[in-house]
Amino acid sequence: MRLVLNGERTLFKNVGLVARFDKRAAMKLAEDLAKYASSKGLDVYIEDTLANKMSTKENSIPLEEMKTDFIITIGGDGTVLRTCVSIPKPEPPILAVNMGVRGFLTEVEPKQALTAVDKCLRKDFTIEKCTKISTTADEIKLPDALNEALIIADEPAKLLYTQILKDKKPILNSQADGLMVSTQTGSTGYSLSAGGPVLDPSVNAFVLTSVCALSVFRSIVFPADSSLTIEIIRPKKILVVIDGQHRQIVSSKLPRITVTRSKYETSFIRFRENFYNRLKSRLLFKGV
Amino acid sequence: MRLVLNGERTLFKNVGLVARFDKRAAMKLAEDLAKYASSKGLDVYIEDTLANKMSTKENSIPLEEMKTDFIITIGGDGTVLRTCVSIPKPEPPILAVNMGVRGFLTEVEPKQALTAVDKCLRKDFTIEKCTKISTTADEIKLPDALNEALIIADEPAKLLYTQILKDKKPILNSQADGLMVSTQTGSTGYSLSAGGPVLDPSVNAFVLTSVCALSVFRSIVFPADSSLTIEIIRPKKILVVIDGQHRQIVSSKLPRITVTRSKYETSFIRFRENFYNRLKSRLLFKGV
Amino acid sequence: MRLVLNGERTLFKNVGLVARFDKRAAMKLAEDLAKYASSKGLDVYIEDTLANKMSTKENSIPLEEMKTDFIITIGGDGTVLRTCVSIPKPEPPILAVNMGVRGFLTEVEPKQALTAVDKCLRKDFTIEKCTKISTTADEIKLPDALNEALIIADEPAKLLYTQILKDKKPILNSQADGLMVSTQTGSTGYSLSAGGPVLDPSVNAFVLTSVCALSVFRSIVFPADSSLTIEIIRPKKILVVIDGQHRQIVSSKLPRITVTRSKYETSFIRFRENFYNRLKSRLLFKGV
Amino acid sequence: MRLVLNGERTLFKNVGLVARFDKRAAMKLAEDLAKYASSKGLDVYIEDTLANKMSTKENSIPLEEMKTDFIITIGGDGTVLRTCVSIPKPEPPILAVNMGVRGFLTEVEPKQALTAVDKCLRKDFTIEKCTKISTTADEIKLPDALNEALIIADEPAKLLYTQILKDKKPILNSQADGLMVSTQTGSTGYSLSAGGPVLDPSVNAFVLTSVCALSVFRSIVFPADSSLTIEIIRPKKILVVIDGQHRQIVSSKLPRITVTRSKYETSFIRFRENFYNRLKSRLLFKGV
Repeated sequence: MRLVLNGERTLFKNVGLVARFDKRAAMKLAEDLAKYASSKGLDVYIEDTLANKMSTKENSIPLEEMKTDFIITIGGDGTVLRTCVSIPKPEPPILAVNMGVRGFLTEVEPKQALTAVDKCLRKDFTIEKCTKISTTADEIKLPDALNEALIIADEPAKLLYTQILKDKKPILNSQADGLMVSTQTGSTGYSLSAGGPVLDPSVNAFVLTSVCALSVFRSIVFPADSSLTIEIIRPKKILVVIDGQHRQIVSSKLPRITVTRSKYETSFIRFRENFYNRLKSRLLFKGV
Repeated sequence: MRLVLNGERTLFKNVGLVARFDKRAAMKLAEDLAKYASSKGLDVYIEDTLANKMSTKENSIPLEEMKTDFIITIGGDGTVLRTCVSIPKPEPPILAVNMGVRGFLTEVEPKQALTAVDKCLRKDFTIEKCTKISTTADEIKLPDALNEALIIADEPAKLLYTQILKDKKPILNSQADGLMVSTQTGSTGYSLSAGGPVLDPSVNAFVLTSVCALSVFRSIVFPADSSLTIEIIRPKKILVVIDGQHRQIVSSKLPRITVTRSKYETSFIRFRENFYNRLKSRLLFKGV
Repeated sequence: MRLVLNGERTLFKNVGLVARFDKRAAMKLAEDLAKYASSKGLDVYIEDTLANKMSTKENSIPLEEMKTDFIITIGGDGTVLRTCVSIPKPEPPILAVNMGVRGFLTEVEPKQALTAVDKCLRKDFTIEKCTKISTTADEIKLPDALNEALIIADEPAKLLYTQILKDKKPILNSQADGLMVSTQTGSTGYSLSAGGPVLDPSVNAFVLTSVCALSVFRSIVFPADSSLTIEIIRPKKILVVIDGQHRQIVSSKLPRITVTRSKYETSFIRFRENFYNRLKSRLLFKGV
Repeated sequence: MRLVLNGERTLFKNVGLVARFDKRAAMKLAEDLAKYASSKGLDVYIEDTLANKMSTKENSIPLEEMKTDFIITIGGDGTVLRTCVSIPKPEPPILAVNMGVRGFLTEVEPKQALTAVDKCLRKDFTIEKCTKISTTADEIKLPDALNEALIIADEPAKLLYTQILKDKKPILNSQADGLMVSTQTGSTGYSLSAGGPVLDPSVNAFVLTSVCALSVFRSIVFPADSSLTIEIIRPKKILVVIDGQHRQIVSSKLPRITVTRSKYETSFIRFRENFYNRLKSRLLFKGV
């Protein structure tokens, strides 16, 4: 993570809007934000699947084409991840409004959403740049991951026999239900649930974490500029999941997944520095 | 960790010898190595407490003055750590012969010791440079740590209430029996026993690991160029242990331990690249 | 686990044979054992799918009807579990020959197989009785589990939101990829991989272990005579896996899985007491 | 844990009072409770060290002689444990008022204390009976433990090399900073901090948990009616800590600690069934 001051940025002239569909309040807030942003002179673009469900006359656009000056997401971490997986690269900065079960990546609560737009317009924010992971599965280039690339068997609770290579040299074998390579950002997500450590946002590293390893297998922290390859000895058909959003079946004699640092980053609009506050509220740390 | 080729080095002209005293075989090997090194034209310096117990006419010298071209240690990780804590900085490179329960840091078995000296003389080795940690406890500068700086209460199984600061900013509180900051090298030692992740030797990071935290507290991986401060809210009297070797009682109103990267490194003489092989034999990984 | 002396047992007059199909050596040993058992006067029954692949004139019989005096399995833990899931209740005792990656449940190596038959015929063994778990998913009675009943989402790496009830009283909620209830026998299997404790074979208890819990969720050890119910709040469609062998999709408004002690047990033929020896070789314990 | 109805009990005629000394509010509440209990016709006995610091004319009595009908403790878990370690056996039931950092064992908050006395007088409560552990260190009988018996080296962060015996048969070796045997009650205390599972209060079991094991060592759950012996191979001088309160140095050629179920129990006065509610507030479980 790098924090970038915003002084030299040009003014925002347009905005993209993404929201979860399954929550009426999120749809309502999307409408309010669309109106408010328009009234402030911004051109508003709404994700097309969302636009279809809204009573709005704003521009409708697929996520893959949302090349706006910034994007507002309304939802939890799932909505943020779904957005990051699909938007054009380099990614516009994201202002994430929390309307989800897990809002670890989000910045503001719904009632602060309009004020947050004001702050964006007067450039009163910092940009948090988050490293992403680039994954290649056999010959297939997968979308970049903000959180993690997870490798599992095609059916649940089935062992993967793998060999792990660092910079093309074999280092270890593993027998586990799954293996994931996680970014600093992702270290507080699924990797943490699987037993991994927290990576401070400023450490230049990835973490390899296993899911239900047959024998003991501790998480290993690698430099972010190394390449990690997972060769799947068996089974022949496996599943790669990017950020819990994008699923890719890989089927070959020796499926080979390679993970490196992406040249792109995800940019979050932040109003305060708050990684450790968010971490505490993830309920894993309780102090004096 | 950085691997350094050895081409430009000057020839070794003298050697220091360190061995554990409690094992007859270690003493015997020390005598054999002293004779062999002499016969090869090296000036031999023997750690004084060891020299007193040996039938030898070699030079006797305290560890603190062992400014030789290289040092041979005979023992396990404890002997290596005891040596690194005391020898003058910058540290001469260490050839570690394994005669211990745990020989994770060592390079050769006893029967290869003489051959290893030959290789050293013909410059047939690489140098593994390992980051060390510099610790200040209140105003006291402690010896650099190759593995970890551990903070615990003065009596066993007693809780420490602490505040953790990164680069002087408070980030988290913790209630635990102990807290340690561990290097990459130390990540496979005590930190691993306490539940920490493995740091690949090439990652530029430290790891903060707690011992028996009251609530859950996952290990956190920090950049090696950050400074970590632990303020001990209670009790007022605590113990800092460097590499399990050097113990420092600290007693003040708010004991404050600060840890940064040392400007010195420990250098190991290595004949092959073998971190992950050593890790497997630490019995935590069992593959296909 | 109860160990039962064998003095009062009547002599074995027939035997069932089960083997993995995917290993030529296992098929070969099955043929050898069939011949040997016949030559000793035993009636031999061979699992039908296996019989089809063997050049044998022995009786062919489905696992579900294998009501023989005892059963020999040739393979790893998977073969043992597959057998236990299907054979008629109460179960004939099992002599498990190890020809698998994991042979934690097995008793003898292939070269000891014929000798082991001799010992069985002269009643020179003890019976290890292992508690099994009875699982009801909505109205469906599933096969008893020797190791564990696992509840997961129908697709990989997807969260289950559940409520846990003990003896019909709600005790905790959980958000995790999966939840399993494991027997003493199963505590060294999948539950251990997911972070659970070891249950000594003589403790009268089950253990509830989660897979990748969102927040921290430690394993909980319950009396074996309690009933545990998992209500799945979402999703509406889940998968229950018995011993990694039997998979049951459950789909309803509030899928409800109830687990109690089965009235049946699995009986293993044992020649020595060796739980902790097997545990050590599971590579989790390394002593002085 | 067994819950016992209270119908047949005779009325309480006297009460013992214990409080922490380091908190003014605790002393004040002790005075209020003493007056209130007197006014209700109870004979009040106050722990002597406490009585010395109070302006009271009540009877002063050492903990070791506090054979009252029931005892009120004012403080956190430490105060409860200190009381249980010292009071005469069989133990009078304890009403624990929470005035501590950790009040996991306590039942009522300070403002409910007087009402709780009323309920006690009209027999409106249940008794929670908690199993205790009896520990013998070499020939020395130690006080019974409500939570755990912990074995550690005499100096901090030093390895114990031990052999573990169940019912006098060796089962495993261990290399760790410490080993503890914990009751069901203690499973949510220090054992949990060291990585152990939760034991449901109704399971008839103990759990063996290690502290910072050199290699991996999972907690093992044993029947409460087994005996566990820890033989300490080295060092020769170790420390046994009962409930964090009573410390016993043991020094011999092969220190041997044996742990069995005590014939005594600790009895808590409870007004509602609340183990899992207390567990949730221990912050380890966070549900939907």
